[in-house]
Amino acid sequence: MIEETIISKAIIESYLKDLLNSVESDVIIGGAGPSGLCAGYYLAKKGYKTLLFERGLKPGGGMSGGGMMFNRIVVQDEARSMLDEFDIRCHEYKPGYYIANSLEATACLTDKALKAGLKIFNLVSVEDVIVRENSVNGAVINWSSVKMAKLHIDPLAFKSKIVIDATGHPCEITHIVETKSGGKLLTSSGKIEGEKSMWAEVAERLTLENTKEVYPNLYVCGMAANAVFGGPRMGPIFGGMLLSGKKLAEIVMKKI
Amino acid sequence: MIEETIISKAIIESYLKDLLNSVESDVIIGGAGPSGLCAGYYLAKKGYKTLLFERGLKPGGGMSGGGMMFNRIVVQDEARSMLDEFDIRCHEYKPGYYIANSLEATACLTDKALKAGLKIFNLVSVEDVIVRENSVNGAVINWSSVKMAKLHIDPLAFKSKIVIDATGHPCEITHIVETKSGGKLLTSSGKIEGEKSMWAEVAERLTLENTKEVYPNLYVCGMAANAVFGGPRMGPIFGGMLLSGKKLAEIVMKKI
Amino acid sequence: MIEETIISKAIIESYLKDLLNSVESDVIIGGAGPSGLCAGYYLAKKGYKTLLFERGLKPGGGMSGGGMMFNRIVVQDEARSMLDEFDIRCHEYKPGYYIANSLEATACLTDKALKAGLKIFNLVSVEDVIVRENSVNGAVINWSSVKMAKLHIDPLAFKSKIVIDATGHPCEITHIVETKSGGKLLTSSGKIEGEKSMWAEVAERLTLENTKEVYPNLYVCGMAANAVFGGPRMGPIFGGMLLSGKKLAEIVMKKI
Amino acid sequence: MIEETIISKAIIESYLKDLLNSVESDVIIGGAGPSGLCAGYYLAKKGYKTLLFERGLKPGGGMSGGGMMFNRIVVQDEARSMLDEFDIRCHEYKPGYYIANSLEATACLTDKALKAGLKIFNLVSVEDVIVRENSVNGAVINWSSVKMAKLHIDPLAFKSKIVIDATGHPCEITHIVETKSGGKLLTSSGKIEGEKSMWAEVAERLTLENTKEVYPNLYVCGMAANAVFGGPRMGPIFGGMLLSGKKLAEIVMKKI
Amino acid sequence: MIEETIISKAIIESYLKDLLNSVESDVIIGGAGPSGLCAGYYLAKKGYKTLLFERGLKPGGGMSGGGMMFNRIVVQDEARSMLDEFDIRCHEYKPGYYIANSLEATACLTDKALKAGLKIFNLVSVEDVIVRENSVNGAVINWSSVKMAKLHIDPLAFKSKIVIDATGHPCEITHIVETKSGGKLLTSSGKIEGEKSMWAEVAERLTLENTKEVYPNLYVCGMAANAVFGGPRMGPIFGGMLLSGKKLAEIVMKKI
Amino acid sequence: MIEETIISKAIIESYLKDLLNSVESDVIIGGAGPSGLCAGYYLAKKGYKTLLFERGLKPGGGMSGGGMMFNRIVVQDEARSMLDEFDIRCHEYKPGYYIANSLEATACLTDKALKAGLKIFNLVSVEDVIVRENSVNGAVINWSSVKMAKLHIDPLAFKSKIVIDATGHPCEITHIVETKSGGKLLTSSGKIEGEKSMWAEVAERLTLENTKEVYPNLYVCGMAANAVFGGPRMGPIFGGMLLSGKKLAEIVMKKI
Amino acid sequence: MIEETIISKAIIESYLKDLLNSVESDVIIGGAGPSGLCAGYYLAKKGYKTLLFERGLKPGGGMSGGGMMFNRIVVQDEARSMLDEFDIRCHEYKPGYYIANSLEATACLTDKALKAGLKIFNLVSVEDVIVRENSVNGAVINWSSVKMAKLHIDPLAFKSKIVIDATGHPCEITHIVETKSGGKLLTSSGKIEGEKSMWAEVAERLTLENTKEVYPNLYVCGMAANAVFGGPRMGPIFGGMLLSGKKLAEIVMKKI
Amino acid sequence: MIEETIISKAIIESYLKDLLNSVESDVIIGGAGPSGLCAGYYLAKKGYKTLLFERGLKPGGGMSGGGMMFNRIVVQDEARSMLDEFDIRCHEYKPGYYIANSLEATACLTDKALKAGLKIFNLVSVEDVIVRENSVNGAVINWSSVKMAKLHIDPLAFKSKIVIDATGHPCEITHIVETKSGGKLLTSSGKIEGEKSMWAEVAERLTLENTKEVYPNLYVCGMAANAVFGGPRMGPIFGGMLLSGKKLAEIVMKKI
Repeated sequence: MIEETIISKAIIESYLKDLLNSVESDVIIGGAGPSGLCAGYYLAKKGYKTLLFERGLKPGGGMSGGGMMFNRIVVQDEARSMLDEFDIRCHEYKPGYYIANSLEATACLTDKALKAGLKIFNLVSVEDVIVRENSVNGAVINWSSVKMAKLHIDPLAFKSKIVIDATGHPCEITHIVETKSGGKLLTSSGKIEGEKSMWAEVAERLTLENTKEVYPNLYVCGMAANAVFGGPRMGPIFGGMLLSGKKLAEIVMKKI
Repeated sequence: MIEETIISKAIIESYLKDLLNSVESDVIIGGAGPSGLCAGYYLAKKGYKTLLFERGLKPGGGMSGGGMMFNRIVVQDEARSMLDEFDIRCHEYKPGYYIANSLEATACLTDKALKAGLKIFNLVSVEDVIVRENSVNGAVINWSSVKMAKLHIDPLAFKSKIVIDATGHPCEITHIVETKSGGKLLTSSGKIEGEKSMWAEVAERLTLENTKEVYPNLYVCGMAANAVFGGPRMGPIFGGMLLSGKKLAEIVMKKI
Repeated sequence: MIEETIISKAIIESYLKDLLNSVESDVIIGGAGPSGLCAGYYLAKKGYKTLLFERGLKPGGGMSGGGMMFNRIVVQDEARSMLDEFDIRCHEYKPGYYIANSLEATACLTDKALKAGLKIFNLVSVEDVIVRENSVNGAVINWSSVKMAKLHIDPLAFKSKIVIDATGHPCEITHIVETKSGGKLLTSSGKIEGEKSMWAEVAERLTLENTKEVYPNLYVCGMAANAVFGGPRMGPIFGGMLLSGKKLAEIVMKKI
Repeated sequence: MIEETIISKAIIESYLKDLLNSVESDVIIGGAGPSGLCAGYYLAKKGYKTLLFERGLKPGGGMSGGGMMFNRIVVQDEARSMLDEFDIRCHEYKPGYYIANSLEATACLTDKALKAGLKIFNLVSVEDVIVRENSVNGAVINWSSVKMAKLHIDPLAFKSKIVIDATGHPCEITHIVETKSGGKLLTSSGKIEGEKSMWAEVAERLTLENTKEVYPNLYVCGMAANAVFGGPRMGPIFGGMLLSGKKLAEIVMKKI
Repeated sequence: MIEETIISKAIIESYLKDLLNSVESDVIIGGAGPSGLCAGYYLAKKGYKTLLFERGLKPGGGMSGGGMMFNRIVVQDEARSMLDEFDIRCHEYKPGYYIANSLEATACLTDKALKAGLKIFNLVSVEDVIVRENSVNGAVINWSSVKMAKLHIDPLAFKSKIVIDATGHPCEITHIVETKSGGKLLTSSGKIEGEKSMWAEVAERLTLENTKEVYPNLYVCGMAANAVFGGPRMGPIFGGMLLSGKKLAEIVMKKI
Repeated sequence: MIEETIISKAIIESYLKDLLNSVESDVIIGGAGPSGLCAGYYLAKKGYKTLLFERGLKPGGGMSGGGMMFNRIVVQDEARSMLDEFDIRCHEYKPGYYIANSLEATACLTDKALKAGLKIFNLVSVEDVIVRENSVNGAVINWSSVKMAKLHIDPLAFKSKIVIDATGHPCEITHIVETKSGGKLLTSSGKIEGEKSMWAEVAERLTLENTKEVYPNLYVCGMAANAVFGGPRMGPIFGGMLLSGKKLAEIVMKKI
Repeated sequence: MIEETIISKAIIESYLKDLLNSVESDVIIGGAGPSGLCAGYYLAKKGYKTLLFERGLKPGGGMSGGGMMFNRIVVQDEARSMLDEFDIRCHEYKPGYYIANSLEATACLTDKALKAGLKIFNLVSVEDVIVRENSVNGAVINWSSVKMAKLHIDPLAFKSKIVIDATGHPCEITHIVETKSGGKLLTSSGKIEGEKSMWAEVAERLTLENTKEVYPNLYVCGMAANAVFGGPRMGPIFGGMLLSGKKLAEIVMKKI
Repeated sequence: MIEETIISKAIIESYLKDLLNSVESDVIIGGAGPSGLCAGYYLAKKGYKTLLFERGLKPGGGMSGGGMMFNRIVVQDEARSMLDEFDIRCHEYKPGYYIANSLEATACLTDKALKAGLKIFNLVSVEDVIVRENSVNGAVINWSSVKMAKLHIDPLAFKSKIVIDATGHPCEITHIVETKSGGKLLTSSGKIEGEKSMWAEVAERLTLENTKEVYPNLYVCGMAANAVFGGPRMGPIFGGMLLSGKKLAEIVMKKI
């Protein structure tokens, strides 16, 4: 015997208990692309209470489309071991270049992060941050559908010690803070520097260097890191993004 | 040293070799929702050459959104063992009702199906079928972005012994065949009967009964099954969909 | 000292307790126009557990715009006492014609209904009904923003003894039932008859006659009543709508 | 006997007499959110001829959607007595935090303001102001549907001693004056400073401080006040908005 | 000395007095294309109280664009004298074919009709008719911008003895009556027959024959006449339309 | 006997001969609002070869909509005689304020201008100017539908001694010249100053003062004049626009 | 010395002479896809006065996109000689299958057809036909941008002995004639039968059989032939389309 | 016997071999307008490995539309011999002005360029460049449909010694480099100067002068040249564009 009302209650109760529990946390990540999922995985694995808000219906960002809709990704030597960590199969194309299925990569990152304890709230956007004396103190969130439907509805505020901007190239959270702080970011100009043209070799290196704090208690990783600090565009290669997520998790753990 | 051209070549070569290899197959599935992924998983595991074309960027269909954007799914007793088969964690809400995270469910189904050998081509739509003497003989496919961009570009034809319509409620492939065959479907009216209002208990049962051939060599499963044969709408419960995918795999294996 | 997290928790907890409590009820009304609010007011006042789902952000339907954006409504003699019941001020324009402010009318209907105990969930649409053996058994609901944002996300099911279609001219719920039941409505043709051209005098009378059951346990009132049973379009006068809501409350109370 | 023509005449005549009477007034308010309704209520109650132009179909601004579509609002201790003044029911969630239904709050504010004598013209936008020697002297208005329909139709001018910008975060009227005055606002930069990130505690305090004159005879209140003078974003709490509207009424009364 | 408030009052008062005066009339015409303006001109000239509601901002229908955006119209011998009546200059291209400027034709028809006493309300649409015992008794109108802006706002009802559908090819008013009467038009099928392909010679003749009553008290003229009664499409020639408007005026005058 | 081909030939030949004849002219006016039509009327009457390109389907600009869709215009004492010149009927509302029908005003201006010899090409936009040594030498035009249809198609060049920007508030032609000249307009800043807020009295006076050359051989009149030179917005009164058109005609005649 | 006005005159004069000359012709083709260009080429080469109206900016239809945006086409043995006739290079992929560049094919067909004397008017749509006593007598055309820009502007009529519908799958001209003739096409049902699912072998054969008259003096070729007479969808192969165009030219030549 | 799978394989294999071969080349051209095709023709003819990426479905840019949709182009004396080189027929309109059909011009340029060996990839956009130490080193490309469909999918990188921006007025590639280089273009300001108003005589001369390097290894030609270096807009004449393409080919050949 299957009763619709029990199902409805199960879903409402389970989700909302989680939501209520999440109003205060250690770390809030915006964006479920590869670097955000990676950071979330390592943080959750170590027991930090970590939330990830993803604007879209599904995690993975643009990775699922591979390059030009050909659903493959390539990873270089340095990041190969991370594929293993996430159970993503690959094979060597040329020495030092490993190719994997982009859908498998997305699925494995998501699954492993969830099982490590990361709380992912999809369909939710970060539309502002909470501040205290020029320091970030949490995120102000809303259902993504509210904006998509052109409704005007107030958000809710979720507190955390750290906020991570993993929204990729648009670096949405840093954009808001740039505007609202009047250009007081920890970049050389105080503003978002903007991504440079593609140079894969250099980009992979700089992505790691740029994975850092961009405003008190606000950090960037992955493509957002180069967009904010002016590194070159990354090639269609995902090693830097995975490594950046991992590195950020380590930085943040030292901070909290 | 990272060279962009090697990455580009790796992606192009790997994808296109796969695409070329797929022009002829055993089974083509349209739609990567839970029932399509399930069917694909069981077929691939048994060694059948199986392709899945998914219109969207990412697999999972509407499952990721849970019920009303609360990202949870519920599964009844009969389907509980399938959650284990796919490594989807769950806990019991009331006796016989198991609740799981909808993002984890999506990720696990995708990952397991890929590792079983299913070829998933995302961003690709089925826009017609190949026929021979009133029997389906493959699928006619195109990039989804072609239609989304309102371009008019010819499709390509991929042959298979069986085609499965797992496109859910819109039952897109059956719709095409209904129109092009002049209403010669294997339903009582020869046409799509249309889903009835929600009745979870009955829907779960009928979904399995309606998982069958709807036109020579064309099969339906999951929500598409009830939409085509006039069963009631399913509640926000996913057992029937998983079981339907599994059942269809068994039916098809006997046929080929 | 004001703390954002307490506010967030208060809002989430309070709303969700209400939502969870509402999964089972006596009556579900779709549409917060004048007749729906009226029906809800009288039912709640008598202690029936009554929910109202309103697709839009705000209650009132089209009433707020008056006639041609001139924010006034007119009410005839028969309904004058209902204006008093709701504290809506009016003055006599010609003998038997009372004119009131359309914004005041909307505000008063909403306020009185809420204080009588009606639960209004705005921004929520009814997208199907629950059925049991050809009888309506509740509503299948979703956030309106899901459809407005063109997302595909599953709904949740809310049970009730009675469902009232107060969605006005589009009679959305009856439309769904017409389609899904294969044209088995309790109208002479089994289908929606469609509203006739305007004839205020006759329309006011027929609106009350057409306020009745249209499918087992599904009722219509207000403009939806004439749209379903083929009465004429109402003039820019609101008496019939208020009276229809009141009458329906009485009918339903006898039924439950 | 109900005659359509009498109804049409009643509506046209009643509305237009009001419109004609309103060409000259004491105060024009733009925006029917909580602070604008509040200001209008207190001004009208004291006998000032006060108009409110609301761009949308219905009053209430974004308040009806509560936080994240959960239709509740929270009010702090300082503003609790205002809920009573408007007959808005509430209960205490934690000491000093009162929770109310957002639809009831909207309805009560609207009803009380209308009954106090405020003239609300909904569906009308303020698209410019009248000036005399660098001082605001009224509003230039148009039907909102003109712009929504992308028509180009001239507005009409309505004179008043004072204009209040209560359009919330977009502070639309102040925006126009900023542009047309060449940046001569009474802010430190002469321009709109822009809202800062959320800090509820500070925002509530600054909203009241920023409730003041922003250009000769042009005042701001509610969310517009912080947007214009650079205060932080308010949390999902409505006390500050109500108090700001009340305070502005007091300031304006002294001025006229 | 120029005072904005006097201007606003002049416009509001003058327009609304006219609107109020128009709630009851002899004839209501829908559509200000050539045939509607012509009919209105002849009716008003004879002293009949005649209103014309035009959906668009400006009268003239599609005539202003000439043929393929080349702003010329052609008129045949039979209608040449009507050009003179309206002061529209022309010259003979081939024997029996007179060519004129389409903008001049539009301006002259409008000006002459207004000066003859026709009341034109532009930006107003006819969205239904008033009926009494299966006979048309007036029009139900609304601002066109309401629909263009996708707002839902009630219309107002304007009574008249006769309604003329001069909305051209879409024959909008007849469409409404066809639907709402359940297909009881005075055509051979009871429904709109639909315009046939172009045959100028025959179309000019039939347009006049089809200029007649299509439902008790509802008449059609110009392109709407052929659309409703199944005549062929007219060539890019305007004689038939002018003559049709004139003929309809004569028919109607006999009727009232 | 009516032959479609003769009609087609008449239209094509007549229009295109005109177009070909117009490739060189004395004056090109952009925009058929009241000031552009007025300027064109006076220039053509004196025998200057004058073209007017109007972006829209019909002349008249926003005048047809009156104020807030109430189709009336008001004209002050100084411009009253111009109404007579164009045969526009009016009556006195208050001493010095004359009210007229906005549709009649549009029709009369158009008709009189055409009969005076002005060539109006509707549905054609000015998208650039021809220059010679920093002086305007004609207009670069295209079908408006090309841009509306988002097509990319080259324009054609039409030479003239003078170009008049009568495009109203957007002052489109001056905008192009501002951008392309690098800000070398004959305003105090070299750029468009932008219209100030409404002040009817002053606006009427300044409109005439600002009716002048804005770049060698490029002139502005009507609303464009204040938009370019920073005068206040005009009230809903048309005297200044008519007088501005007339004045510009006089200035230009002296120049050529 | 380059003078803009000479260029403008050259373009206007040359085009319009052609347009005027084309008002009467032997054959009008709608659609510049491969079959339309082919038919036009053979007809023009034999000296028939042939016009081709193409809705889009550029000839070639969907052929340029190849299959799934891979810009190649395949031609079978039977049509290989036609590639040579048009100077389209190809190479043999498998015995009997020749592959060519789709952009070269488009360019060569266009160039050869133009040089053979075909008049192509691009950016022009056929929106109706001229009829005489149930027989097609020419086409009613308009700028495509008129409809794309949602303008309502009358078309012009161009006479011809024969009209060919080469608009591909939508068979636009036949659609119009189907509607306007009340379903009197020369198909078995009198209506458009609709294309069946793909079967390349059979489709290639039937395309030629279906290349014939569909209404007195109206012919179909290419994809439109199968769409109208119910043949299967063609594979991504272009032989049938080229042969169909050629065959139709031969049929038509016998008829005229 | 025609087999769909062979056709599919032929198309996939042929295209992908080409794509894979193109990952490294001598020259990449963006934009298939007249100057891009011309440059590509001369480069390919001399044996340079040259690719052209065209955003649209078909080559030719805006040339096909002629001037104002009149499908003709004009070429001056200096470029007449190039028409012959490409087999484009023309006739002399006035001494020194040759008129040709714009569709023939497009077809001939495309055909000749392809036969000379140019690889054209249509439906592909250049969305960034590859850089090495402030020098362009290739293009970053994506399917145009990805952006048109608002998808977010990573591009692929294609290396070349030289990149040519032939995207016309928008000079899209130079725009990207301007932004990403922080305004380090080889123009006097370091930024795009912007096209000036039309002056055909001067524009034709300057187009050739401006056909040059704009950033290390990035060149501009045709309309893009004047847009970037601030030359005047070209008249509706194509000589300069053809000559610019030819000149750029010569410059580039010396460089490589």
